[in-house]
Amino acid sequence: MTDTMTFSPGLEGVVAAETAISLLDTVLGQIVIKGYDLIELSKTKGYLDIVHLLLEDGLPTEAEKADVEAKLKAEYDLPEDVMKVLQLLPEETHPMDALRTGISALAGYDPTIDHHTLAANKARAYKLLSQIPEIIANSYHILQKEETVRPLNELSYSANFLYMITGKKPTNLEASIFDQSLLLYSEHEMPNSTFTARVIASTLSDIYGALTGAVASLKGNLHGGANEAVMHMLLGAGSVEAFETLLEKRLQNKEKIMGFGHRVYMKKIDPRALVMKDELKALCELKGDDLLYRMCEAGEKVMEREKGLYPNLDYYAAPVYSMLGIPIPLFTPIFFGARTVGLCAHIIEQHENNRLFRPRVHYNGERHSHQSTGEL
Amino acid sequence: MTDTMTFSPGLEGVVAAETAISLLDTVLGQIVIKGYDLIELSKTKGYLDIVHLLLEDGLPTEAEKADVEAKLKAEYDLPEDVMKVLQLLPEETHPMDALRTGISALAGYDPTIDHHTLAANKARAYKLLSQIPEIIANSYHILQKEETVRPLNELSYSANFLYMITGKKPTNLEASIFDQSLLLYSEHEMPNSTFTARVIASTLSDIYGALTGAVASLKGNLHGGANEAVMHMLLGAGSVEAFETLLEKRLQNKEKIMGFGHRVYMKKIDPRALVMKDELKALCELKGDDLLYRMCEAGEKVMEREKGLYPNLDYYAAPVYSMLGIPIPLFTPIFFGARTVGLCAHIIEQHENNRLFRPRVHYNGERHSHQSTGEL
Repeated sequence: MTDTMTFSPGLEGVVAAETAISLLDTVLGQIVIKGYDLIELSKTKGYLDIVHLLLEDGLPTEAEKADVEAKLKAEYDLPEDVMKVLQLLPEETHPMDALRTGISALAGYDPTIDHHTLAANKARAYKLLSQIPEIIANSYHILQKEETVRPLNELSYSANFLYMITGKKPTNLEASIFDQSLLLYSEHEMPNSTFTARVIASTLSDIYGALTGAVASLKGNLHGGANEAVMHMLLGAGSVEAFETLLEKRLQNKEKIMGFGHRVYMKKIDPRALVMKDELKALCELKGDDLLYRMCEAGEKVMEREKGLYPNLDYYAAPVYSMLGIPIPLFTPIFFGARTVGLCAHIIEQHENNRLFRPRVHYNGERHSHQSTGEL
Repeated sequence: MTDTMTFSPGLEGVVAAETAISLLDTVLGQIVIKGYDLIELSKTKGYLDIVHLLLEDGLPTEAEKADVEAKLKAEYDLPEDVMKVLQLLPEETHPMDALRTGISALAGYDPTIDHHTLAANKARAYKLLSQIPEIIANSYHILQKEETVRPLNELSYSANFLYMITGKKPTNLEASIFDQSLLLYSEHEMPNSTFTARVIASTLSDIYGALTGAVASLKGNLHGGANEAVMHMLLGAGSVEAFETLLEKRLQNKEKIMGFGHRVYMKKIDPRALVMKDELKALCELKGDDLLYRMCEAGEKVMEREKGLYPNLDYYAAPVYSMLGIPIPLFTPIFFGARTVGLCAHIIEQHENNRLFRPRVHYNGERHSHQSTGEL
């Protein structure tokens, strides 16, 4: 009977899975990824190191890292009919909905879709890591009635991702800053989208399905939309003073302000935000325009002073993406693109050691009929 | 810190939500739907009564029921471009993947997709209830290179659903048996697909996204595929004796046999199975061929004797669907079509009283670096 069970709304504080992939260690202050601190990794490693760490065993040698890149480039072959599907979507389609439809359609091209062996799942993960950036960039171009941009073999994985979005070959610094952002977004324990993917995968459904659910989750305003909301605030304000006033007004009106706080970090800063803040500074110096940096710093101070809240990754990723020339509606799809590797790692782990998610409920509704039917 | 929390794999026995929608009451032996016992309802009510019960307040009057039907028929207008999207899918596409892609694509046609008011969500639910059967039937026809079948205004909702699948107008008895099956599949507390939908909806993502996740969940072999697996067993055996032998062999080999048992009902029978068993008997009498009924009864006895396991709804829905002329690959999509109303009710309830799902994990992986970064 369910009435004796305790209930924690939103499963807050409830352990929903055992995992060897990652942990937000709030005691040691670490984002642990397969045993390594993500912030430490960000100082010397790149996104493809994390891809190897999450999908294979351990950090890669240079040769192994080159293998990962080669594997990804070999899969740059998004089917033409998937592009045609994207062309059929109404122009009002939300970029996350276009991405979800594209991933969903891709499922039909996998001849071994019902094989969930470790090898088959890993091969699928590399293929998706390769093709999802193409879907993200080109579904947006198609919805905007722009020319599509296919990947260039000469560019690195991250540079290609950025190039397909902007249509311009990025400088090394731009590519490296974008790569860092992908690394920081790559994996983060059990947010709603990762939980969604694992819940779906636990029925022994496939990676495509689990990822479509995760896109749907990340689309929600309480999850992935924060980086876009931050950028709209920054652009809407336009100056340091106006941004401070805007935040203060919103606080007075008790409006939720995106980009601050995190259920797990609570009153501590998201350490990923500090890394992105440094990248924003570097970008501002490169471009000779530090307005966004000054606005963000000022906003940070307002929120600390008024609410004791600290920025999360989205707060500093937003201005970085904007200065890299990325359209705001692509901020959340890029977050998803970066997280694809973490999601695939979780789906694979779920398939390897599975238990169907099937919780119970507290029923607080009416009872019109209490007698037993005698049929159970 | 997560180490002090208890962990229940698959959240078994964990209460994940408060709901006034439904409860599997294993003590009284009832499937409670908004206060009513589903089995009692099945004796006098039809699917559209349940639609009204789940989306509005209480059971409908005849006039209200007619209103529901009129509302559903008014939305028979699946966009032509969604049909074209389905035509672009490779012919190997799984029907559940086609359904998921169709629902995902529909999102772009909703001009108020980011409005989650009760009224907007309800209107969306009726629209989806109307259009999902069209996607289910016609995505299959398209993948099979058959003519598509559009709904007829003269037929009832359930009769239309069946008509679009088979291309033949059903008799009243066939339509009524199909309607009963939709009623029995309509809502069932918190199975994986409903949980998936609520987890996604808790980010304040929309109904389309939550439903795509639920399709992906229901596609999994441990969830929705059971009715199809049952039918393959029955057809593969072909006679009462061969079916008994097949089950006994599978039991000896410790293979999982679909159609029996249920985590919540455990060692008791799924009361919905009994209702479908009666419908199967009626169908067999109508068609003058009781082979499937005799096979199912014999299989039921083998499983009770050897394992103490009882059939669930899928076990008797499978032969019923087969005798109604429904192709096996559509059994799970139809389950989804019937469950759409329950899923929408849960998504709406989640939006009306929301708390983001964000559980924690037990980390059982390596630790290469234990020192604090001092940054939190």
